[in-house]
Formats: sequence, structure tokens, C-alpha cells
Amino acid sequence: MHITLQRLNDAVHFEGKNDDGNTIHLDGNPNFGGEGKGVRPMQLLLMSLAGCSSMDVVSLLTKMRQTLDDIRVEVNGERDTNEVPPVFKKIHLKFFLKGNLDEEKVTKAISKSVDKYCSVARMLEGKAEISWDYEIESPS
Amino acid sequence: MHITLQRLNDAVHFEGKNDDGNTIHLDGNPNFGGEGKGVRPMQLLLMSLAGCSSMDVVSLLTKMRQTLDDIRVEVNGERDTNEVPPVFKKIHLKFFLKGNLDEEKVTKAISKSVDKYCSVARMLEGKAEISWDYEIESPS
Repeated sequence: MHITLQRLNDAVHFEGKNDDGNTIHLDGNPNFGGEGKGVRPMQLLLMSLAGCSSMDVVSLLTKMRQTLDDIRVEVNGERDTNEVPPVFKKIHLKFFLKGNLDEEKVTKAISKSVDKYCSVARMLEGKAEISWDYEIESPS
Repeated sequence: MHITLQRLNDAVHFEGKNDDGNTIHLDGNPNFGGEGKGVRPMQLLLMSLAGCSSMDVVSLLTKMRQTLDDIRVEVNGERDTNEVPPVFKKIHLKFFLKGNLDEEKVTKAISKSVDKYCSVARMLEGKAEISWDYEIESPS
């Protein structure tokens, strides 16, 4: 798997690109000259984890013949500010699901995803404690 | 640190957003219904690592009074396809730098960044072996 990163200004605004041409923008802490032109690297790490686990949840719920109308995730990462650098010690994923869904199947899908199949979660395991919960909203 | 992820279609195309409103698009493997509308989660992990280390390199070279005209990074992640899920076992960062740069200072900056200060590298340490090298192009 291959990606490139190219700086776009004189400071720390970068463009990331995959081999299919999909791009994202990154920028840094204002202390480093960041100008808010993109997502911070540690925020990107949380998005990577949320994306990986959500995609697994969608796939598992589909296999379980559940109708998922919407899915949103809120992620909070708690950094250890006593450490240099301040890595994440705890990451919490809260899934908001909409649809005609069986609670037991939702619990099983999220657990299988976060605790087993999500590659990004496996990469962070042992460094950050990853927890999750969810809310189901009825179909409108 | 807080981010949100919202699904945008009926499959696995998501938008990630930070609290400043910066957004990125993620999409999944075609086997999961991915349609190539965004970066894959594991690609995002590589971009997060490349961004974090590049920003540190820029900051360190500035402190060392080096003139950096351009910086680009090529990242290759090698996944362990015998494992489920196939996590990265090796990640290589190749930095391409342009400017009037002292080789010794460049080596020191990259080493301090990747091997010490970059938060994302610290999070992946022990799971993936992270290596790096660089090329300096003379200013045009």
C-alpha cells in the first residue's frame, strides 16, 4: 500500500494522495505554523480508526440482514499530556445508528469490528485503550 | 481531541470532520461496497504518520536555520496478508527534500522526528517496523 504527501505552502500544509488520486488536506498545530487548512495528523488517526471500524460494522450488519439507514460516529481521544509526545491513552467511539435494528446484532457487529476485525484498532492496541458504545435511533 | 464521521451514501463512503470544520472523504474496499470516493482507512493511517513526521521535520529544520524549499514523502506500508486482519508489519517513509540543506542536519531532523517526537509513530511502534531514508535535491 502506497501514498504520497506533498507540502503545499511554506509551512505545514500538506496534501495526501492515494494511488487512485483521492486527496486529503493536512495542517499542523499553529505553534508549527499551521493555518487550519486541513486535518491534524492525530485527528486523522482517529478518523482512520473510526472509518475502519464503521466500514466493518456496515458490512457485518448487512450480512446479518439488518437495515441500516444511517451511521455516524463521534470519537474522543484522550492524550497523555505528561508524555512527550502526548500519545492517545484512551479512545472512545460512540456509534449513532438509525434503522430497524436488533440490539443484540448491533452489539455483536460493533464488538466484532472494534475488538477483532478492524486493522487500525489492532495497530493501536496496547498503546491506547479503545472503548465504544452506541445509540439506536428509530427510523423516521 | 474530538472528530466525527458521517456516512454519505448507502455503502461505506464517509465524511470525517474535525471541530474546526475541516473535512476529508473516506471510502472502503470494493468488497465492502466501496466506490473509490475517498481514501481507505489504512491509507489514512499512513498519511497520518507521514504528516506527523513531516511537520516535525519542517519544524526541526527551521529551528536549525535550514532553508527548506520543498518537502514530499512517499510512504509504503507492507501488510501481513497471513494475519486477520492484515495489519502493517513494515512502513517505509522516503523524504524528498529541496533546498540548501546540510545533510547532517537533515539526518538529525528526520531521526528526531520519526524515532522520537512524532506521536503517530509512537502509537504504531511495536506493531510495525518503521524505517526511513531521504534524498536531497539541489535548489533549482
